[in-house]
Amino acid sequence: MGTQPHTDQPSVRDLLRLPVGGPADLAALPTDTTPGFDGGKAEEKEREKKERKERAAAGTAALGRRLARLQERLYAAGTAGDRRRLLLVLQGMDTSGKGGTVKHVVGHFNPAGCRIRAFKAPTEAERAHHFLWRVDRSLPRAGEVGIFDRSHYEDVLVPRVHGLVPEPVWQRRYREINAWEQMLADDGVTFVKVFLHIGFDEQRERLLARLDRPRKHWKFSPDDLTERARWPDYQEAYAAALGHCSSAAAPWYVVPADRKWYRNWAVSRLLLETLEQLDPQYPSGTFDAERTRARLLAE
Amino acid sequence: MGTQPHTDQPSVRDLLRLPVGGPADLAALPTDTTPGFDGGKAEEKEREKKERKERAAAGTAALGRRLARLQERLYAAGTAGDRRRLLLVLQGMDTSGKGGTVKHVVGHFNPAGCRIRAFKAPTEAERAHHFLWRVDRSLPRAGEVGIFDRSHYEDVLVPRVHGLVPEPVWQRRYREINAWEQMLADDGVTFVKVFLHIGFDEQRERLLARLDRPRKHWKFSPDDLTERARWPDYQEAYAAALGHCSSAAAPWYVVPADRKWYRNWAVSRLLLETLEQLDPQYPSGTFDAERTRARLLAE
Repeated sequence: MGTQPHTDQPSVRDLLRLPVGGPADLAALPTDTTPGFDGGKAEEKEREKKERKERAAAGTAALGRRLARLQERLYAAGTAGDRRRLLLVLQGMDTSGKGGTVKHVVGHFNPAGCRIRAFKAPTEAERAHHFLWRVDRSLPRAGEVGIFDRSHYEDVLVPRVHGLVPEPVWQRRYREINAWEQMLADDGVTFVKVFLHIGFDEQRERLLARLDRPRKHWKFSPDDLTERARWPDYQEAYAAALGHCSSAAAPWYVVPADRKWYRNWAVSRLLLETLEQLDPQYPSGTFDAERTRARLLAE
Repeated sequence: MGTQPHTDQPSVRDLLRLPVGGPADLAALPTDTTPGFDGGKAEEKEREKKERKERAAAGTAALGRRLARLQERLYAAGTAGDRRRLLLVLQGMDTSGKGGTVKHVVGHFNPAGCRIRAFKAPTEAERAHHFLWRVDRSLPRAGEVGIFDRSHYEDVLVPRVHGLVPEPVWQRRYREINAWEQMLADDGVTFVKVFLHIGFDEQRERLLARLDRPRKHWKFSPDDLTERARWPDYQEAYAAALGHCSSAAAPWYVVPADRKWYRNWAVSRLLLETLEQLDPQYPSGTFDAERTRARLLAE
């Protein structure tokens, strides 16, 4: 099953997939590289950079058209009993580009077939339930592409860093997440879990850029600096979460995200490779097309 | 309040808005015209047609960028207590282009700020509630753009045409809809209710086109012909619904929809004029930007 049209190109899933088992060594993974993107070797560095950026933008647009066609097939198959659906999970530190990825990458899809949910700090009603409850209610239906801007992984990050729940509780959550994701994968959910990996210095630049533009102030909260001060704790919490929960059924991909164009290109490719492997098919009609045509023409 | 940047162009809202009160005379409203679209007067009909189409596509793309900027302002304002939100309601006969409008027009927006819902025949759980229940649960939150592909108006169309409920029930529903929409308008919902008006012959062409392409068969159901046979009844039911429920708080717009490019352009314009009048503003930050910048630079 699955088409294999990219024999000339390396699989970005293979390049970015976190190995299963063992903690993730995030510090060893660069945030400013562009794995799998064939930008060629130009002589002038600046020129190369500019050209690569333009090619990436054009490449992402071309990927977008292919993604849109595959999404339509997934959606069409879903109307005829195919239970499969896709779930893109986006995690990353503040300013890592989760919102930008939704806007640019998901912007290629037909919005009617997408189920997008941004998870913020849980509400009082949500906290009265198990942490997976609110996530469960936001899952894509058959044929849909779900997009989580933050997710259930927040519940093994923030509580751990800030000591909001006892250690046995967040330790238990890794197992609960793995069991829950396995159950959904068995039911037809294909996970594309993406960690947008940015560097400490890059985050500073992005926060400063937000401060420089009053129109971006609404995206900024002084709390962002409080969280930034806990950077090493968050990296440790991420390393543990990604390591414990990168399973065969639902692997994590680590996308170097200091460059926005590469981030968009890489996430587009991850989705494309995944959808091509799923290879959803248009259902055949359950009616007699010739007879129906005759009926219309005989009106 | 509201910017007025279109003094040179007629308001498409004014051109397409259905008058308040009295039944709608749908038969008198053409489905193949392009009100408000200044396509100029070329000598050759074919050439004019092609050019107009190209200009419209380019125009819709330009409108799209302006729509995206206004949507971001609406969303940003919503994060700071502005309760306003937009609700696009799409109604029309089969093949009138509701899905295409969502794909093309809503595709300009940041999907993260959209709440899209397609209403199909009510499920058993939905039928166990008042007909407005399922619609209520799908409303946009503050700052969002809601999009309904079909809506509560189905409940004054299908039951009336097929006699599923007694006349006093569907008669009562017009009043219930008006009261409900008024309540929401008072709470900050701006309605853009659009009837995509296609002709009987145009529907035949579109159904035949679907039959000609096996990849489109999943969009087709033999039931579509059964409903088409009730065309006059549906036109009557639409005329009553649009007439009874075109209020000052939530007017109906009738968009001639035989031409897809005009439909996309007109709906884009309706949304643009509406958002420009709402004129949402970026909130100012509630923090000291200078001090925050200093804190970041002193790390």
